[in-house]
Amino acid sequence: MQIFAIDLGGTNCRAAIINSDGSIEGRRQRPTPRAAGGPEIAELMARMAAELRADALKITAAGVAVPANVTSDGILRRLPNLPALEGAKLGDLLEQKLAVPVAVENDATAAAIGEAWVGVSSGVENSVLVTLGTGVGGGIFVNGTPLRGLDGGAAKIGHITVEPDGHPCGCGSVGCVEQYASAPALIRLASEQGLEVESARELFELWQAGDEKAAAAFVAIGRYLGIMLGSVVNTLNPEMIIIGGGVSASWDAFIEPLRREIKLRAFPEPAARARVVRSKLGDDAGMIGAARSALVTLLGQ
Amino acid sequence: MQIFAIDLGGTNCRAAIINSDGSIEGRRQRPTPRAAGGPEIAELMARMAAELRADALKITAAGVAVPANVTSDGILRRLPNLPALEGAKLGDLLEQKLAVPVAVENDATAAAIGEAWVGVSSGVENSVLVTLGTGVGGGIFVNGTPLRGLDGGAAKIGHITVEPDGHPCGCGSVGCVEQYASAPALIRLASEQGLEVESARELFELWQAGDEKAAAAFVAIGRYLGIMLGSVVNTLNPEMIIIGGGVSASWDAFIEPLRREIKLRAFPEPAARARVVRSKLGDDAGMIGAARSALVTLLGQ
Repeated sequence: MQIFAIDLGGTNCRAAIINSDGSIEGRRQRPTPRAAGGPEIAELMARMAAELRADALKITAAGVAVPANVTSDGILRRLPNLPALEGAKLGDLLEQKLAVPVAVENDATAAAIGEAWVGVSSGVENSVLVTLGTGVGGGIFVNGTPLRGLDGGAAKIGHITVEPDGHPCGCGSVGCVEQYASAPALIRLASEQGLEVESARELFELWQAGDEKAAAAFVAIGRYLGIMLGSVVNTLNPEMIIIGGGVSASWDAFIEPLRREIKLRAFPEPAARARVVRSKLGDDAGMIGAARSALVTLLGQ
Repeated sequence: MQIFAIDLGGTNCRAAIINSDGSIEGRRQRPTPRAAGGPEIAELMARMAAELRADALKITAAGVAVPANVTSDGILRRLPNLPALEGAKLGDLLEQKLAVPVAVENDATAAAIGEAWVGVSSGVENSVLVTLGTGVGGGIFVNGTPLRGLDGGAAKIGHITVEPDGHPCGCGSVGCVEQYASAPALIRLASEQGLEVESARELFELWQAGDEKAAAAFVAIGRYLGIMLGSVVNTLNPEMIIIGGGVSASWDAFIEPLRREIKLRAFPEPAARARVVRSKLGDDAGMIGAARSALVTLLGQ
C-alpha cells in the first residue's frame, strides 16, 4: 500500500510516496505560494500527486502535514505564515481532487508520529517532540497515541511561558519559549550579545570557532528550552524528548545547558527517565508521519 | 459493592466506605502520625477499616490517596510532609492487613478521578484539576484516562516554572507556581504587601472588607495560576480546569485575574474551550477518587 504524503511548509511544499514500511519512493518539491487559499493549495498538491502517479506509483490514501492547529473537524487555524488557509478544510478539498481519503495533521505532531513509527522513538509510548525552526513546534505521544486536542491546540509547547513579562510573541502572549529558542530568537539573542549574524548556522560556526558571545547566546537558548522542558517533564513524565528542526543542527552548543536545566527543574526520577535525543528522520519526519497518520486513521493499519 | 477509601493527608488520615454509586456510607478520621513509616501507617488504616467493618459494612477492595508520586510499581516517592514513607509499597502492606486488593493513587490524581466520576467533570474526557493547599497539586485526564506517568511524575503542575529566577521551592527548583499560589505563598505575598496574616482565610476576610493590599496579593496568585494554566492549555487543550483545595475558598478574589491571564497566554480556541470551574466534591474528592480507582483498576468496573 502506498500513501501520498505532503509537508506544507511556509517556504516549500514537499511531497513523496511513502510505502507501508515507512520507506520513501519518489519525491517532489515546489515553492509554497504564500498568499494561496485552500483550493489553490489543493490544486498544487494534486498536480504533485499526478506527477508521482505518472511514475507508475499508486496512491491508496494521502496524508498532509500543515503548520496549523487542526481541529477535530479538520479545520485549519492559526497559520501566521499562510494566512489565506485560515479556516480552510484542506483535507476535504484535496479528497475531491485526488479521489482518495486524506488525513491532515499539525506538522510537529506529524513529525512525532513519524519518529514513533520508524524513527528514534519507535516503541516509546510516551514522548515529546520539539521542533526548533522559524517557530518552536511540539508533538506529544501519551500511552502510544498522539495528543491533538479538540481544537488541535494540544502540544503547542512553543507557547509555554518561560518569562512572565518577556518578549512579545506572534501568538498574542509574551515570554513564550518560541521567543527564546527559535531561529529568529537565536539571532536576536546573539544581537543582544553584540553579535550581528544572519542565521543560526552562522552563529553555530562562530561557536565552533570558540566565540564566547555565540556561546552565551546558545547557553540562553538551552536554558530556556530546559525551563520549558522541565515543566513538560513535570506535566507528562515522558520517556523521551526528541529535538528536531533546523536549529537542532547546533545541538552541541545548547544541549548541556538544556539538560542541566531539566535536572534542576523536574523531579529526579522523571528527569532521569526523559532521555533527550535528536530527531532521526530530520526534514522527512513530517511527511513520513503524515503518511502514517493516513494509514492509521483512514485505513486502520 | 463497597470500597474502603482512605485519604492520607499531612495532618489527618480520613477514611470512609464508598458505595459503587460514589455515595459515602461511614466515616472515620485520625491525626496522621507524621514520623510513621509504612507498616505503622498500614496498621492505622487497618484499625480504621476494622471500626467501619464493625458497623456491619463490607469491604471488597480498598483505595488509598497519598501526597506522593506513586510509581507504576506502587512505590511512594517525594513525600516532603511524610518522609518516613519514602520508598514504601503502602499498597502491599495494606493488602496484607486487610486481605483485600488495594489501589494507591496520588491525592490530586485521586481528586481528579473523583470529580470525573461523580463530580463536576463527570462525562468530561479531557480535564485538569488543580488543588491549592499547603502545596499546589494536579490531576490530569487525557481521553478519559488519568495520566500518571511511569514514575508517578505526571500532572505535577504545581512545579511548572512561572518565574525563571523566582522563589526557591521545596522540590529543588526555583520559581515553581507552588511558590506563588499555595496557602503559604499567599501569606508570603501578603507579607510582601505589608500585611501580616496567619492564614489564607484571614487574608480573604480582609479582601471581603475591601483591603487593597489583600486584593493585590490575590491578583498576584490569580495571575501566576493563569500563567501556569495558560501553558497547560497550550500543552493539553483540556475541556475543563477544576480548582479545589483550601485556597479555592477565596475563588472570588483571584478568579478574574486567573481567567484574564489564560486568555492572554493561550490560543483563543483552546482558551475558550477550557471552562474554569470549582471542585464539587471538596475535601471528599480524594477519598471518592481512590475508591473509584480501586473499582476500575482492581475490579474492572
